[in-house]
Amino acid sequence: MSTGSNYGKSFTISTWGESHGEAVGVVIDGCPAGLDLSSEDVQIELNKRKPGKSIFSTPRKEDDKAHIISGVFEGKTTGTPISIIVYNNNQKSKDYSEIATYYRPGHADLTYDMKYGFRDYRGGGRSSGRETIGRVAGGAIAKKILSEINIKLTTYARTIGNISIDDNNFNENEIWNNDLCLPDKNRVEKVEKHLLDLIKNGNSCGGIIECKINNIPSGLGEPVFDRLDAELAKSVMSIGSIKGVEIGNGFTAASLTGLENNDFYNYSDDRLIKETNNAGGILGGISDGSQVILRAAVKPTPSIKSTQRTVNKDKNNIDINIKGRHDPIIVPRAVIVVESMVAITLVDMLFRNMNSKMDNIKKLYLD
Amino acid sequence: MSTGSNYGKSFTISTWGESHGEAVGVVIDGCPAGLDLSSEDVQIELNKRKPGKSIFSTPRKEDDKAHIISGVFEGKTTGTPISIIVYNNNQKSKDYSEIATYYRPGHADLTYDMKYGFRDYRGGGRSSGRETIGRVAGGAIAKKILSEINIKLTTYARTIGNISIDDNNFNENEIWNNDLCLPDKNRVEKVEKHLLDLIKNGNSCGGIIECKINNIPSGLGEPVFDRLDAELAKSVMSIGSIKGVEIGNGFTAASLTGLENNDFYNYSDDRLIKETNNAGGILGGISDGSQVILRAAVKPTPSIKSTQRTVNKDKNNIDINIKGRHDPIIVPRAVIVVESMVAITLVDMLFRNMNSKMDNIKKLYLD
Amino acid sequence: MSTGSNYGKSFTISTWGESHGEAVGVVIDGCPAGLDLSSEDVQIELNKRKPGKSIFSTPRKEDDKAHIISGVFEGKTTGTPISIIVYNNNQKSKDYSEIATYYRPGHADLTYDMKYGFRDYRGGGRSSGRETIGRVAGGAIAKKILSEINIKLTTYARTIGNISIDDNNFNENEIWNNDLCLPDKNRVEKVEKHLLDLIKNGNSCGGIIECKINNIPSGLGEPVFDRLDAELAKSVMSIGSIKGVEIGNGFTAASLTGLENNDFYNYSDDRLIKETNNAGGILGGISDGSQVILRAAVKPTPSIKSTQRTVNKDKNNIDINIKGRHDPIIVPRAVIVVESMVAITLVDMLFRNMNSKMDNIKKLYLD
Amino acid sequence: MSTGSNYGKSFTISTWGESHGEAVGVVIDGCPAGLDLSSEDVQIELNKRKPGKSIFSTPRKEDDKAHIISGVFEGKTTGTPISIIVYNNNQKSKDYSEIATYYRPGHADLTYDMKYGFRDYRGGGRSSGRETIGRVAGGAIAKKILSEINIKLTTYARTIGNISIDDNNFNENEIWNNDLCLPDKNRVEKVEKHLLDLIKNGNSCGGIIECKINNIPSGLGEPVFDRLDAELAKSVMSIGSIKGVEIGNGFTAASLTGLENNDFYNYSDDRLIKETNNAGGILGGISDGSQVILRAAVKPTPSIKSTQRTVNKDKNNIDINIKGRHDPIIVPRAVIVVESMVAITLVDMLFRNMNSKMDNIKKLYLD
Repeated sequence: MSTGSNYGKSFTISTWGESHGEAVGVVIDGCPAGLDLSSEDVQIELNKRKPGKSIFSTPRKEDDKAHIISGVFEGKTTGTPISIIVYNNNQKSKDYSEIATYYRPGHADLTYDMKYGFRDYRGGGRSSGRETIGRVAGGAIAKKILSEINIKLTTYARTIGNISIDDNNFNENEIWNNDLCLPDKNRVEKVEKHLLDLIKNGNSCGGIIECKINNIPSGLGEPVFDRLDAELAKSVMSIGSIKGVEIGNGFTAASLTGLENNDFYNYSDDRLIKETNNAGGILGGISDGSQVILRAAVKPTPSIKSTQRTVNKDKNNIDINIKGRHDPIIVPRAVIVVESMVAITLVDMLFRNMNSKMDNIKKLYLD
Repeated sequence: MSTGSNYGKSFTISTWGESHGEAVGVVIDGCPAGLDLSSEDVQIELNKRKPGKSIFSTPRKEDDKAHIISGVFEGKTTGTPISIIVYNNNQKSKDYSEIATYYRPGHADLTYDMKYGFRDYRGGGRSSGRETIGRVAGGAIAKKILSEINIKLTTYARTIGNISIDDNNFNENEIWNNDLCLPDKNRVEKVEKHLLDLIKNGNSCGGIIECKINNIPSGLGEPVFDRLDAELAKSVMSIGSIKGVEIGNGFTAASLTGLENNDFYNYSDDRLIKETNNAGGILGGISDGSQVILRAAVKPTPSIKSTQRTVNKDKNNIDINIKGRHDPIIVPRAVIVVESMVAITLVDMLFRNMNSKMDNIKKLYLD
Repeated sequence: MSTGSNYGKSFTISTWGESHGEAVGVVIDGCPAGLDLSSEDVQIELNKRKPGKSIFSTPRKEDDKAHIISGVFEGKTTGTPISIIVYNNNQKSKDYSEIATYYRPGHADLTYDMKYGFRDYRGGGRSSGRETIGRVAGGAIAKKILSEINIKLTTYARTIGNISIDDNNFNENEIWNNDLCLPDKNRVEKVEKHLLDLIKNGNSCGGIIECKINNIPSGLGEPVFDRLDAELAKSVMSIGSIKGVEIGNGFTAASLTGLENNDFYNYSDDRLIKETNNAGGILGGISDGSQVILRAAVKPTPSIKSTQRTVNKDKNNIDINIKGRHDPIIVPRAVIVVESMVAITLVDMLFRNMNSKMDNIKKLYLD
Repeated sequence: MSTGSNYGKSFTISTWGESHGEAVGVVIDGCPAGLDLSSEDVQIELNKRKPGKSIFSTPRKEDDKAHIISGVFEGKTTGTPISIIVYNNNQKSKDYSEIATYYRPGHADLTYDMKYGFRDYRGGGRSSGRETIGRVAGGAIAKKILSEINIKLTTYARTIGNISIDDNNFNENEIWNNDLCLPDKNRVEKVEKHLLDLIKNGNSCGGIIECKINNIPSGLGEPVFDRLDAELAKSVMSIGSIKGVEIGNGFTAASLTGLENNDFYNYSDDRLIKETNNAGGILGGISDGSQVILRAAVKPTPSIKSTQRTVNKDKNNIDINIKGRHDPIIVPRAVIVVESMVAITLVDMLFRNMNSKMDNIKKLYLD
């Protein structure tokens, strides 16, 4: 069953398209009727993953224009599938004859060949970062749904290279004010300098993306396998370059004691609150209504100018220097992708939770 | 859609049962016909998660006896669903009237109430660790399938408290020779001492489980969402107490450069090899045939004797001391659960990969 | 993907078990919390498919006792999987050595061998009618959910042999008053006589089952593939012995004109009504709130005493006379199975429809 | 879960698009790598459902040109999703202001309003026959896969109005030689005359489509719910206008005796054969390798010129005469749609059957 390009159960996205094909796109199914939606809503999100916005990302000019071609009528969703297409205008010209002959380290060139017998080698084909366009378009719609019930996501670069933000300087409004998605403006200059050094040396670095979900309803997540944390782990780990996912204290919890890690409860002014949120808002796989916190580890950009050892089609060991200008860091462009996958997962879990109680069934069908 | 108790697409397990109901169990669907299978095959694995094997785990005597009651005929699987049941013999007596009145910190008591309006409070009900019996039984069958094509899993405690194994002393044969699933016998005494101290203080600790998959075929994992790493992340994160999952270098990759993290290729004696395996055997979500490495962060046992602050049904803030003897560490009993989920995921991905090429279709239907 | 023993998306049943194994059973997942449920609720439905209730059905004494062993706490469903088991008490003794050597015409003996390489030949194994016990148990729960929102199913034998009921004599209360599930008591004697003749001649007959759904909410059914009629067609056709399914006018519609078949609308006392219901309550795959009507064609019982030609293991052409007493008609016992599958499908579609409008999402999450 | 626009498990199609949107399309996921595929392969099939080919179908000129925009590289499928788009060139101009104000009898106007609160009224929106373009495009690919292992489908009009073909004159080569898809050329003139009469009277008629599958492998179909016949019933019933589906003898089996309906076996020249094929090639939901036969009842075209009674937005009872020229019969254009859905289902079941035996797993992974 090679059908891995579909995500979700009650709210689903199906992405398609290769880096250098005619277009990439996504079909969103399960969007309720009556949501206000325009191409601009999608465009705003797509622009957040646009390359070329700074010296730190690839200067290829991509004109990622979103076209909604179904599922919307007179400005509102109709309840039927929403098809969104983005044409690959700037992808045609490049020469990929060299890349076709060898396997780039850290890329999926080898594994696609192994699985399918051959590959579309132009720009990575299906394994290209352009595949995430469909995710971000789907995320745009998911976030519109979430905003209707006041759920809010905040996603940003926590660490780039080995430079982390200072939580005391955290300012949500800064995230999209700099090209690095850093919520701490005091770190911007330092990180920029680090990246310029990496570029100079033909190298790259990794980092950590953090996502916070505020005002999430309690009760989201299905026991036993489709827990909210498990679903988030899958959806975020499905993004290329992500090598780890953690919730709340995550790997740090492994080094704490129970007394340190348990979140105590108390009633304060008749409201049940937790003294801490080490669990990251999820217990037994189900949201407790407090903030959900997720972190994802992003590997360094594999395309680097430095000399690398690899093999070619003729089974020779060769040295390569990958041409072109590449982002020395994936994190800033991946921030919106992580946020999109989290949003899509949340909508799916919201819808899946609707029949958890008989009272809900009666509320919708007896009133 | 509260249907979260089913895992897998081509090879599925559906678990059911509460800690203090009559039984717990699992239905495995998608097991091919013609596999040798007996209850003993399942029992061997269930015994690995048995409590009471040492002073470090709960002394409740559980008699977890596996009964295969369908899907096997004359010692072989028939291709139809395999139902396995384990009766809850020792669960009836205890008094849960107190636990019913308050929310235990770090447990799912609160969230089940939030989601469903009430809960089966006896021993955690569905959120109890006993739910993993079905996973381990399913894993036993998955591992039998994997062994038929020589795939081998090795899973163990990498870190307990803050004590990690020394990879130089790694000995696979030690894993099931000590009650802590430590592959480094030099660490056993030190960890035991640490756990005894925790018990004395009414506290607990977390740790890290590591799983290695050897001899995995290349090509497993479906782009784009159902990647091998994404599926593993979900299946492992779906285990209670797991707060983070990483593949290969994982979170460490976030602090490396591209030059450090990329795995270079070369041909050695006509065999394509990688100089390193920082990617943990997966590129673009697809296995490359080298060892897959996964780590999971386990939180400290939430049930501790130390005084904790919480709230009760009458909305009072209270102090509690959880009675009974509890494991000061979840890791050793969770090792076989992690291995089971990895095995189940692998079989699912093996089956899903079978139609990746037209050649495979022809091989099975034209010969 | 041999995983065909699971049905439903938002409300699912997973059946397991062979005719002559230790037990048969079902796991129901997706049942909302807070529904009153006892084993007796299930038993009442199981008794409707019980054999041995008359001379017309097999005299094997089956003691089909339902045990609910998970998912219910203090008389209410908890939202977690409901596991129901029925032990096969009376199945052990019989000698199946002969049946193992040849293929019974009209049974699945041959195809199971073809698919799996061998088969559990005892009483048909998985392809036995006993497999429907799980469906009926699942249907019992589905019907309880439906009754909470006043949806009502009426299912009965429309035709047995070539004798059909007279709609003018239709009396719903008669259905379970006779062993043939005939809603027309004037036909009972005539059908009984016909069946006695068939028994005498070692033969059997087929028939037609009809199901009506009253008080169904409008809007059920998902375009385009998961239409209500398509889902019903699948769930009913999945019952052994069913060879055809139709909705509303069904095959008769094929011989009508548009003017005859279209249902005209009008407002009567401010209520939108249809002058006729040829469509059987479904347009574009979506319920319109009027009565849904479905009919299923049931083939004649394949196990007959008359001499039949078949082949044995040694590849000889042989004549057989199937021993034992068998129902000369499947219809009466299949009535409750059809009703169960329709009920399960309806609950699934009810739950799947809950997020069709943004207003519903807001109603459940903003109030 | 309003996600009904996706069909299949191991080979899936996701259709999208409205009659009068910018385009309609389909994403096919699960197509193996290495299949030769061009837009022309799809175009040939799309042309079979093209309107305007005779006086009997709507004269709207539709320019249904297939564009494959992903999943194919250098003439071969790559194993990744195949996106096919067909622009709605001729749909823009018409005035739908009137149709927006009332409910057309026999159409989905009312039920879409009921489900979603409003509808895209232009040409039926999502419930338009144009939705089947995606199915036919998916079917084109499915049929290419089937032909690689020599499976062949033959689909045609069996009955139009009340005129049926004479099986003695059956000639497969005639099917696409006349505009009515009749395999019996002696019936063409008679049917044409009947249709002209209907047009004259502003009326329409229904009919029956028959599909035969030759050279199907044995073993296809998963017990218990995902039987081959159940899956076919769903996929065919999901086509608009289909009101009934039957396999083999179908509804006729209901009126036969066991002795008449059972298919006897014998060995002839060492080959196992059946004396008859009343079961239509499926026993216990699994193919036995003989011809599979399916029939579908098609309702008469609901759009007719004759005066019909309905209601309008202002809740008035009104008389309407639907404008424009409409097909007096749906059958000929639906033939290729039925064939497509059968082909898609078959490929899905072929792939799902691949792991039915351990031997198959070993064959693919150990060789």
